[in-house]
Amino acid sequence: MQTTSGFANLAEEVIARCRKLASFSEDAGGTRRTFLSAPMRDCHREVSSWMKAFGMTVWVDAAGNLRGYYPGTSAGAPRILMGSHLDTVPNAGAFDGILGVVLAVGLVEYAGAFDGILGVVLAVGLVESLEGRKLPFGIEVVGLSEEEGVRFGVPFIGSRALVGRVNEELLGRKDRHGVSVRKAIEDFGLNPNEISKSALSDDILGYIEFHIEQGPVLENLGRPLGVVEAIVGQNRLEFIFSGQANHAGTTPMKLRHDALAAAAEWILAVEKLAQRALGIVATVGFVEAKPGATNVIAGEARATLDIRHASDRARTEALDELIRQAESIGAQRGVTEKWRTLLAQHAVAMDPFLTEQIEQAMQKTGCEPHRMASGAGHDAMILAEKIPAAMIFLRTPGGISHDPAESVHLDDVAKALECGRHLLTQLAASREFLGRTCRA
Amino acid sequence: MQTTSGFANLAEEVIARCRKLASFSEDAGGTRRTFLSAPMRDCHREVSSWMKAFGMTVWVDAAGNLRGYYPGTSAGAPRILMGSHLDTVPNAGAFDGILGVVLAVGLVEYAGAFDGILGVVLAVGLVESLEGRKLPFGIEVVGLSEEEGVRFGVPFIGSRALVGRVNEELLGRKDRHGVSVRKAIEDFGLNPNEISKSALSDDILGYIEFHIEQGPVLENLGRPLGVVEAIVGQNRLEFIFSGQANHAGTTPMKLRHDALAAAAEWILAVEKLAQRALGIVATVGFVEAKPGATNVIAGEARATLDIRHASDRARTEALDELIRQAESIGAQRGVTEKWRTLLAQHAVAMDPFLTEQIEQAMQKTGCEPHRMASGAGHDAMILAEKIPAAMIFLRTPGGISHDPAESVHLDDVAKALECGRHLLTQLAASREFLGRTCRA
Repeated sequence: MQTTSGFANLAEEVIARCRKLASFSEDAGGTRRTFLSAPMRDCHREVSSWMKAFGMTVWVDAAGNLRGYYPGTSAGAPRILMGSHLDTVPNAGAFDGILGVVLAVGLVEYAGAFDGILGVVLAVGLVESLEGRKLPFGIEVVGLSEEEGVRFGVPFIGSRALVGRVNEELLGRKDRHGVSVRKAIEDFGLNPNEISKSALSDDILGYIEFHIEQGPVLENLGRPLGVVEAIVGQNRLEFIFSGQANHAGTTPMKLRHDALAAAAEWILAVEKLAQRALGIVATVGFVEAKPGATNVIAGEARATLDIRHASDRARTEALDELIRQAESIGAQRGVTEKWRTLLAQHAVAMDPFLTEQIEQAMQKTGCEPHRMASGAGHDAMILAEKIPAAMIFLRTPGGISHDPAESVHLDDVAKALECGRHLLTQLAASREFLGRTCRA
Repeated sequence: MQTTSGFANLAEEVIARCRKLASFSEDAGGTRRTFLSAPMRDCHREVSSWMKAFGMTVWVDAAGNLRGYYPGTSAGAPRILMGSHLDTVPNAGAFDGILGVVLAVGLVEYAGAFDGILGVVLAVGLVESLEGRKLPFGIEVVGLSEEEGVRFGVPFIGSRALVGRVNEELLGRKDRHGVSVRKAIEDFGLNPNEISKSALSDDILGYIEFHIEQGPVLENLGRPLGVVEAIVGQNRLEFIFSGQANHAGTTPMKLRHDALAAAAEWILAVEKLAQRALGIVATVGFVEAKPGATNVIAGEARATLDIRHASDRARTEALDELIRQAESIGAQRGVTEKWRTLLAQHAVAMDPFLTEQIEQAMQKTGCEPHRMASGAGHDAMILAEKIPAAMIFLRTPGGISHDPAESVHLDDVAKALECGRHLLTQLAASREFLGRTCRA
């Protein structure tokens, strides 16, 4: 077994490989690599070459996922799945004020080098670190084709294919150039009619995904690694407050029905509730006043709500309370209020056994494990529908992601590699794990 | 002297004339008549025909103001000026989120029939009601060419010309088609080099403007008429709150620097201060969050402030307090705040003698006078720079203005006419008034 310092060289290599992949972009100015775009082919070629060098069999499934298989000790050995996604966020134009399909942080033109990609490259690095030694399970590394939802406005196309959730409706969906998912798959040289063959094999014991945290929590705690116990559920809604547009000069304060003032009061109520309720994050990221003139009292104000919690019950109760508060604030002001749901997604628990094994592996690495919820969605959330899934977060400097400034600490990557190796060793020795019946 | 019922027929005629002028529009769908537009020529022709029929001499000055003179008892008699503006607000496209040059109430496509126009038509009606009888002063009725600021983004071009404030900078200003004020004047068949001749003659004793209130105050009090004692001063500012854009899912509440939450807290502070301070109206009519995505904490929020009061001191003190509060709210949140002035305009007092005379005339008409500040700017504000000016407000049903639904009550117009006639009679008998030295 290598020591952490033994993983330093490999960590350096992992980071260099991520940076290399960042050069495969649709645009010369920075990294932008959407689902089945031309640079994705170059990315596949590069990752394949590493996989093959480390003894893996490589193929691209009909959903454009790059898959590499490293066999176990016996031909009939089950396998574990490791990886993440190879697509990236795009330019600022993909911000959607209402649906907010892009989980972006700021008005960035280009993506960073690590979001998703690190999870794939790190898994390949773990296989490399085995130096040909076989385990009682095979390792399938998957570079998922699509997670960010940029090209077709639907995220997780890659992992959806693995759990058999790419249907005709999704295949028919078109990008802004009018190209359907089906056509994009064909243009990439793949056969969309074979997409069901992308589904997970029935010998998979579980899925492990390394991913940068994309938030400030670990950095604030001074910890390199975190173990994800759940991916939060989330609701996104649009609220519309309707008052009375009127002249800002001629309408006395007491005769106003100011829709924006109502929205402002509610925005503060959202913040207050989330600050008081443990684990809730709630955000109003978009607001618009109509008519939106300096000298006209707003007759209408639209605002969005994004609310998340690892417990569906806690989230739903908080949401109900915020809807009640919107109604009550409106009623006191002679402002009517209505809302509609833009997105509702339940929380997904990670596999308890794998999560505990990860904690033990972290301790062996010298990292005090920190259990946390993931505030963002990840492929593990989709794959957990079919197989036990777990996630390990790496500290994200400055919490900065979806930005060319996105980075990782070399030592954190070394620790993640060591933790991964401890985990593989533990799992290889676990009768409980090897005896699992696959749900797929 | 006619009784109020005697003015009912004339009031009906006045309203019909206003509605007739509303048909002179740049657009078949409703009323839209900007500075020196083609339908303004038709409007001039129509008003001129009435003026001439009632014994007035008519001309159009080089700023496009329609002017009609009804002589006094002697050739050397001084004159009073009465009137308002003949241009209208435009379609919704002219809303300006930042500068808010259009004093519009709602997302209307077209103007009403009375804003400005009523003041001109009512003055012509008062001359008509004299039935050829002469007073010790002449009456000059002015239909000002431009008050709303729509075409060139600068309001009050008509009244500016009367006080000698149309300079080369203003003449060079261009509309959205690239046509300058100078060119527009030439295209209308006028000579921009003669604009100084538009200036008020030095025999003017004062200016009296009837105008719809464009607000709900008189209607709420159940009074047909109001007397304006001051036109409020106003400041318009833009505030920019700068925090930290971040992921709505991965950033815990306590690590946020949410620019929109800061703006919301301040929007409520604006409302609270204005509700507590007598006579202040303060409005945030525009707000924008950046990047403005549902799932991104706002890194920046821009909001405008419109604050008005009849006392410059009260307004300035309130504004200073709101700036302090913006700073303090930001400081508590790790959000920086800056602001810039978009407009600063001091309050303008109406002439005390004329205001008192109007009150007496209202009492004679059977209306309990209500002194009030005008929350909106009016031509009287500009003309008051040179001559004693006063304004009479007519109740505005529903407070609705700048909308095709804008209306007046027939009986209120009759009362305004009667009040105007009492006023003329009083002024004709006042040695103090007739002995005034003109400031022009």
